[in-house]
Amino acid sequence: MSIGPPNGPLSRILDELHARFGPTTDGQVASYIPELASADPTLFGLALTTMDGFGYASGAAATEFTIQSVSKPFVYALALADRGMDEVLSRVGVEPTGDAFNAITLEPDTGRPLNPMVNAGALLVSSLVDGATAADRFERIRGWLSAFAGRELRVDEKVFRSEQLTGDRNRAIAYLMRNAGALSGDVDEICSVYFRQCAVMVTCEDLATMAATLANGGVNPLTRRRVLSDELVGRVLTVMTTCGMYDHAGEWMLRVGVPAKSGVAGGICAVLPGQLGIGTFSPALDATGHSVRGVLACNELSTRFGLHLLRTAGLPAHPVRSTHRADAVSSKRVRSPRERRALSEHGAAIVVHELQGDLAFGSAERLSRTVLAHLDGVRWVILDLRRVGRLDESAVSLLRALLDELAQRGVTTIFADPKGLAGVGQLLRADGSTERVRDAEIALEWAEEALLSTRDMQTLSPSAQVPLGTQELLAELGAERVARLRALTETRAYDKGDIVFQEGDPADALYFVTRGLVNVDVVTSGGGRRFRLNTVPAGSAFGELALIDGGTRSSRVVVAEPTECAVLTVPAFEKLRHQDPALCDALFRAIARSLSARLRQATREIQALEA
Amino acid sequence: MSIGPPNGPLSRILDELHARFGPTTDGQVASYIPELASADPTLFGLALTTMDGFGYASGAAATEFTIQSVSKPFVYALALADRGMDEVLSRVGVEPTGDAFNAITLEPDTGRPLNPMVNAGALLVSSLVDGATAADRFERIRGWLSAFAGRELRVDEKVFRSEQLTGDRNRAIAYLMRNAGALSGDVDEICSVYFRQCAVMVTCEDLATMAATLANGGVNPLTRRRVLSDELVGRVLTVMTTCGMYDHAGEWMLRVGVPAKSGVAGGICAVLPGQLGIGTFSPALDATGHSVRGVLACNELSTRFGLHLLRTAGLPAHPVRSTHRADAVSSKRVRSPRERRALSEHGAAIVVHELQGDLAFGSAERLSRTVLAHLDGVRWVILDLRRVGRLDESAVSLLRALLDELAQRGVTTIFADPKGLAGVGQLLRADGSTERVRDAEIALEWAEEALLSTRDMQTLSPSAQVPLGTQELLAELGAERVARLRALTETRAYDKGDIVFQEGDPADALYFVTRGLVNVDVVTSGGGRRFRLNTVPAGSAFGELALIDGGTRSSRVVVAEPTECAVLTVPAFEKLRHQDPALCDALFRAIARSLSARLRQATREIQALEA
Repeated sequence: MSIGPPNGPLSRILDELHARFGPTTDGQVASYIPELASADPTLFGLALTTMDGFGYASGAAATEFTIQSVSKPFVYALALADRGMDEVLSRVGVEPTGDAFNAITLEPDTGRPLNPMVNAGALLVSSLVDGATAADRFERIRGWLSAFAGRELRVDEKVFRSEQLTGDRNRAIAYLMRNAGALSGDVDEICSVYFRQCAVMVTCEDLATMAATLANGGVNPLTRRRVLSDELVGRVLTVMTTCGMYDHAGEWMLRVGVPAKSGVAGGICAVLPGQLGIGTFSPALDATGHSVRGVLACNELSTRFGLHLLRTAGLPAHPVRSTHRADAVSSKRVRSPRERRALSEHGAAIVVHELQGDLAFGSAERLSRTVLAHLDGVRWVILDLRRVGRLDESAVSLLRALLDELAQRGVTTIFADPKGLAGVGQLLRADGSTERVRDAEIALEWAEEALLSTRDMQTLSPSAQVPLGTQELLAELGAERVARLRALTETRAYDKGDIVFQEGDPADALYFVTRGLVNVDVVTSGGGRRFRLNTVPAGSAFGELALIDGGTRSSRVVVAEPTECAVLTVPAFEKLRHQDPALCDALFRAIARSLSARLRQATREIQALEA
Repeated sequence: MSIGPPNGPLSRILDELHARFGPTTDGQVASYIPELASADPTLFGLALTTMDGFGYASGAAATEFTIQSVSKPFVYALALADRGMDEVLSRVGVEPTGDAFNAITLEPDTGRPLNPMVNAGALLVSSLVDGATAADRFERIRGWLSAFAGRELRVDEKVFRSEQLTGDRNRAIAYLMRNAGALSGDVDEICSVYFRQCAVMVTCEDLATMAATLANGGVNPLTRRRVLSDELVGRVLTVMTTCGMYDHAGEWMLRVGVPAKSGVAGGICAVLPGQLGIGTFSPALDATGHSVRGVLACNELSTRFGLHLLRTAGLPAHPVRSTHRADAVSSKRVRSPRERRALSEHGAAIVVHELQGDLAFGSAERLSRTVLAHLDGVRWVILDLRRVGRLDESAVSLLRALLDELAQRGVTTIFADPKGLAGVGQLLRADGSTERVRDAEIALEWAEEALLSTRDMQTLSPSAQVPLGTQELLAELGAERVARLRALTETRAYDKGDIVFQEGDPADALYFVTRGLVNVDVVTSGGGRRFRLNTVPAGSAFGELALIDGGTRSSRVVVAEPTECAVLTVPAFEKLRHQDPALCDALFRAIARSLSARLRQATREIQALEA
């Protein structure tokens, strides 16, 4: 485990807690297991493990002690994984009892223990773990606990023998359960596995990591291995919430408010779902059997940082960050004037919703309402998921219902999903009414093409030729001047994937695309990825800045379809300047107009991005 | 309450649930209160209220019935508000009991009821509500429940009289508590207030809104009035979680997993914190006293949409969306070449972290770690909060510790906080090591100014004059040509706040700023707000596009400091074109160079925004 910078704020806070609660003399070490009675009551360790496996610790964080009852929720998880929810639930209840950990209360008719966190339930749960022999069963338990801790754990044999010698109350509970038909098997063997399970040695750093594995949905943040399914994590955390702290559970939830489990050797393991695992160790216990310093530290952490699970955190931001239609914002594909007109006249049939935040049930409901409120005249809905952190199971179900409705209304929904969010796959429909593309740009271009094709305006085939005379930049020059210009250009051909130029190359030529298609892209300032600035089809030009300010290229041009360009190099342009200053000026003005159009487009784009 | 479009997906889902569970014949109406025994067992209503007060309903959603035990958590909240947590906790415990709703179990020594959700606790809680007389007390309870429902609720007198006549078990519990010294006052009066409280009439839409008020942190989403403090909401939801469903609480939490409370007249109120309130009504009850159809519907909603509170939803996105330094990205203030050089040489002392998502404890920890990892050579840290949804109490506490550390290291932290997030105020320090400004742009400019001033490069005072000859655009023209140009310009003076031009105005002039400062801004494409494109100081020009493509203005220019401009109108420029084509061409080229620089800047800005 990587340990945080010693002067990081959270390190400092743990040290403060350690200094503040270390001196307390309250509580006593457990005495009913003789080997535990010899523990040093002043020991005190604190540890946190984050969701990315970062660790913070203070005090006796590396001291080993026996896990005791902290094993119960984890072994319950193993029994659930081995036997399934229904069978386990038929053998052990889940009702909180308000009883102490060693209560003998069983369900009147069935002898079923009331929940898996009291000793009766934990003994029964331990007997449900798969394994041909008692030794096999224990080895599976040890391996399972080790997977949560991210290291191989071993047994404290002295504590185990001490528990064996003094475990009569647990034996009595086991016999009562077997008498009632609730437990089956060899009671001595069952108790022995259970005592061994309780004698597994951990540090509070291990407990923090075990808690973090639950907080992280079942994936150990150190080893990155999935130990438990998402669904079973929810079950285990629920039982920790309602029953984890025995007859102190209600007050613990009221004050600390995080699922937790304590052990009689002084460990506490507390889970902040999605955030953090907490482990504490201090052997002096209070009257209800919980570590005094551990409870104080958890209480203080929760109060100071407002970690209570049911502390409501206010309304999340609206899931729709902005909404616009394609008559206002168009894709980066350079369009002919006729296409531009069509898109500005009919682009309102394409609506783009830029989403944000995590989509859960509540936010998916607001999103549905917004989408339905913007359907007037709409045939394509683009949902831009770029800024969505995650798509909850609950959101997926509700959005599926929304997509049913959109499909019925003949609307096509396009997901712009650069991150490949989990859950989006479940939204795609077989009836062709949904599409998933890499980003909002491609989605918009896709919808524009669909719109243009409904208006009999298929865009130019990639193999069509656009001679210099009909190039947009040169449209007003007249045939004679174009012919003179043509004489100065050279023809270059490119294959798909070729790089025409890239950032830092000398800006030494202007390119007229006479056939094909190229993309202009740049690297994001974070350096992470490239994104497209423009798509330039035949009939348009790129690289104009070369003739104006020279210098080096600030973007890259990659060939998207086999392409041919008429290239006017800077030396050729300089020649033109001497031979025909008027033509040169006209060209220059055309470029300035094109630049100014591009600047306006860039401004619109910034407007949309800033929205 | 506004009701959703009848064909919205959630409406349809409620209708489906209604159709699916409506026909069930399981369960029986409560019979121990004679007036309830006459209820129609086939009635079934479902309602949801969203955090913005939107309502969905299906079936008998407008049918009134008596609230019964669903009143308990709300009246508990009133007692907490009246008496404070400590006093109420000393009188009524919070431990789940696994007992039925009408259990007589009290704490052995004190006679204290074990929790406020069983009848014993609820009776005692009701007696703790402030009020000079029983009638006052009841009127406060009725008003309080009405505030949660968002409408005035009234009592079903027939049910009240029926409960009065048959309430002997509750009277017995009350006398036992008074006998133990736990309850004080007139038992008949106390029971009478409690019976009246139970006989308040609600619909399941009311229950949905009451639940939504808790889900919304205590603010009624219909009336927008705060009914309960955030902190008490957490307490109430905790008690609903651990004790709300009596001896079914553990299994309810395991399967449905949301805080809830049911009543014997057939109501269930369930809370999805931060998302939704659910209300159901159907009088046929199961063996543990809960509405059969209500439990089925809640179970199905939770399973289908994964609403379980402890279902872990995976790791949130990293709170730092991008990090860059001011040597790569600079503010929109137009700078002199010397300033530009200084910023590109020393700008690495300014680091900008763009944050995203909701900041809770776990994400604040990751943020702290990222900030500490990027401190090499840094003197100014800008935290851009624009994309932060909210700043949790837990994040605030941890960030305060981070700011301590940054202050110690001599680093100034600037919060760019356009939304005025709650909690940011608590981060500001009195020692001058923190600043809060409106947006990241201003933060960057602020830090740049601070950096330049440490390098003895205070930017130009707003009153300094920059004559045409030293304007950046005209620097290469030579004195004689500048003099000719000057003759064609007119001088215009503006006061702070004046608008030079705005979007849609004819683009009819080029402005050289000779004194002062103006801001160029545009409206975001969402139309919501304006943001700044550039800040233009004396020595720079704006409005160049006028001379190139005419048309209309695409941005607005607002005067930030008293300003004087030398203005070259289009007619004057046309005149110049005839008189001095060479000067005109030189000017034109200078503009094209400036445009191209601006286009490159816009590209960089898009790069940063897309990052």
